[in-house]
Amino acid sequence: MKNLKGACIFGQSGGPTSVINASAAGVFIEALKQENITKVYGAEHGIKGILDERFFDINQEDVKELEFLKNTPSSELGSVRYKLKDADVDDTDYKRLLEVFKKYNIRYFFYNGGNDSMDTCNKISKYLQKVEYECNVIGVPKTIDNDLATTDHCPGYGSAAKYVATTVAEVYKDMTVYNTGLITVIEIMGRNAGWLTAASALANEIGCGPDLIYLPERDFDMDKFVADVKKKADEKNGQVMVCVSEGIHDKDGNYISELYASGAKDSFGHTQLGGLASVLANVLKEKLGIKVRPIEFSLMQRCGAHIASKTDIEEAFNAGIEAVKAAVRGETDKMVCFKRTKENYEIEYILLDVALAANAEKKVPDEWINKEGNGVLKGFVDYALPLIQGEANQPKVNGLPRFAHLKKVLVK
Amino acid sequence: MKNLKGACIFGQSGGPTSVINASAAGVFIEALKQENITKVYGAEHGIKGILDERFFDINQEDVKELEFLKNTPSSELGSVRYKLKDADVDDTDYKRLLEVFKKYNIRYFFYNGGNDSMDTCNKISKYLQKVEYECNVIGVPKTIDNDLATTDHCPGYGSAAKYVATTVAEVYKDMTVYNTGLITVIEIMGRNAGWLTAASALANEIGCGPDLIYLPERDFDMDKFVADVKKKADEKNGQVMVCVSEGIHDKDGNYISELYASGAKDSFGHTQLGGLASVLANVLKEKLGIKVRPIEFSLMQRCGAHIASKTDIEEAFNAGIEAVKAAVRGETDKMVCFKRTKENYEIEYILLDVALAANAEKKVPDEWINKEGNGVLKGFVDYALPLIQGEANQPKVNGLPRFAHLKKVLVK
Repeated sequence: MKNLKGACIFGQSGGPTSVINASAAGVFIEALKQENITKVYGAEHGIKGILDERFFDINQEDVKELEFLKNTPSSELGSVRYKLKDADVDDTDYKRLLEVFKKYNIRYFFYNGGNDSMDTCNKISKYLQKVEYECNVIGVPKTIDNDLATTDHCPGYGSAAKYVATTVAEVYKDMTVYNTGLITVIEIMGRNAGWLTAASALANEIGCGPDLIYLPERDFDMDKFVADVKKKADEKNGQVMVCVSEGIHDKDGNYISELYASGAKDSFGHTQLGGLASVLANVLKEKLGIKVRPIEFSLMQRCGAHIASKTDIEEAFNAGIEAVKAAVRGETDKMVCFKRTKENYEIEYILLDVALAANAEKKVPDEWINKEGNGVLKGFVDYALPLIQGEANQPKVNGLPRFAHLKKVLVK
Repeated sequence: MKNLKGACIFGQSGGPTSVINASAAGVFIEALKQENITKVYGAEHGIKGILDERFFDINQEDVKELEFLKNTPSSELGSVRYKLKDADVDDTDYKRLLEVFKKYNIRYFFYNGGNDSMDTCNKISKYLQKVEYECNVIGVPKTIDNDLATTDHCPGYGSAAKYVATTVAEVYKDMTVYNTGLITVIEIMGRNAGWLTAASALANEIGCGPDLIYLPERDFDMDKFVADVKKKADEKNGQVMVCVSEGIHDKDGNYISELYASGAKDSFGHTQLGGLASVLANVLKEKLGIKVRPIEFSLMQRCGAHIASKTDIEEAFNAGIEAVKAAVRGETDKMVCFKRTKENYEIEYILLDVALAANAEKKVPDEWINKEGNGVLKGFVDYALPLIQGEANQPKVNGLPRFAHLKKVLVK
């Protein structure tokens, strides 16, 4: 653990969230204050920007504009999905990265992302240690999926959860407006972990939530699903709301969306690529003969900064600050994690080995899912409710979001 | 024009909006103040609730809860799609309605809805005149489609437009995050009028709007569309955003969604009912070989009360108040309309014959659509921008919307 002097670089990676830029703001604003950090760079498109030597000079940015990043969704520097090979197999990228780090005297590297990005972060950290290049490496967590191990929850999740809970409540109001039967099937992001879909249950706290919830943590059985919906429809005048994770699968691990939708062609011979919600809606219409409306929350659930959680924005911002402070005091090879104090909701920022986050996936605990596998229990609600507290109060101009305007001056 | 004493009844009809309940709040709160209005009723499911004699006693409601209606989306009393027959052909419903009106001494009738609802309102008004039953009838406009004639714009449109503009801007941010080509096709409501789809252009005011916009006011040509997208993709590194009205049609009036999607079956033999966005995405993928993401704003665009326009909420509320005041001072057979003063944005509430609104459909003026038919012009932006001003500041509880809790005591 060395106290280093030199430049820092920060990169964003993986799928964007509503608050990933809040972490960027935290890193940049804190880095600009630190005496040991001589220059602050932002990599364009994450690791790719480093390899291509394309990065922005953050010292030229106005701090007021950096503050606006807190309410600007998506990855302002550009993101990337780029998997580094093992250095033992092919160290081309690593050598190039080392060259760039040396050229700009980069002594602090911050990487913001989910599992795959923490894997990148870990690999780079280990390589730099091996070649004895002194550089403190800290991962900043981010994912709407909330599936990073070692942290109580992930920045990005709270805001996506707030979007889901709020929108589910509003759609519920709409669904119940006529005096006729209507099944609503809502598809929510999450391939392997059901955290975000589970957040739909929060809308039940105001009596406007789903009747049935299906997570990828349990195997999905179509016959059981149809029977579940029929039972609820009989009880509730045909008005049933179902929330499903995009990643639900049968007992053999086949995604339901692919299993039922593959090979469909329209009348012009084009392949139809309907989402899971449409697949389930079609099955329900056929089996039950009821009107069904499929809805996909699509990208809106991960970029809805206007309905972000204030708690999430602040925590994402603080995670960036903590990363810089930790690196400057000599920490490396770590990820910033959240630890929740038991009694009230309070977050302590701790550091754990980045390798632990890189190689694990946290799922919704089995004890928070009901026995039938079609709903979530109080344990989940108690866990998730604090994460959606507080309003974003997004700055506006002319009734529209006032996003950050960075100069983005490329370093030459 | 008579100054009457008796009960009033208010009903909601047609597709809900984010602010239809704000008009209900206006009607109820004003009606409760009026000495000539002896009782205030709310019809359950619009005209159906009157015919079935199912209505709520609003005098038993807490005014504080009525205020919460301003931020509660959808039709709190329940809505209905029920087309009254011409009284000359079949007057069964009219006779029944008259019977109910007489029984409860209903002398004021307020009906809140779009074209079809104003047709209902008009028919009832004319029937009551014919049978010489004294009752003042006032229509309150409502529709996200903004297609009611005789009013500058409709309550509900501004909030849906704000949802569309904000969400388009956020999705634009998400779309441009990777350094790779991605076409985004967003489907927006509007069968015959393109007002709401045109609102996507407002996001261009902050540089995050669509590259191409297609409205049902112009015939849609698939080859031209593919060529338009290809041209933009060549110019913009393959990152193109397209917004389309659900109601776009070819020169013979065939809906594009039906023309291309009919008869498609999935591998299990279920009929696929993909939306227009999926249809266009499939065509683009096939013709251009680029990644395309279809997005449907679905019900969210009409129930997103959390991102409602303050201007719209206030105008919807005031429209309700104006309806009651007009009826009490003896007006009947009218709809409340908005008249815009030319210089600054200011609204005057005027009354015009309800029949005029019942039998007309206002479309986006031709001079506000570009020559190519793939974009909207400044005239539209100047018209629409004032309508999305101001924030809803929706009251929250536990981080979730605090909707109105009405007692809904049925009159016996």
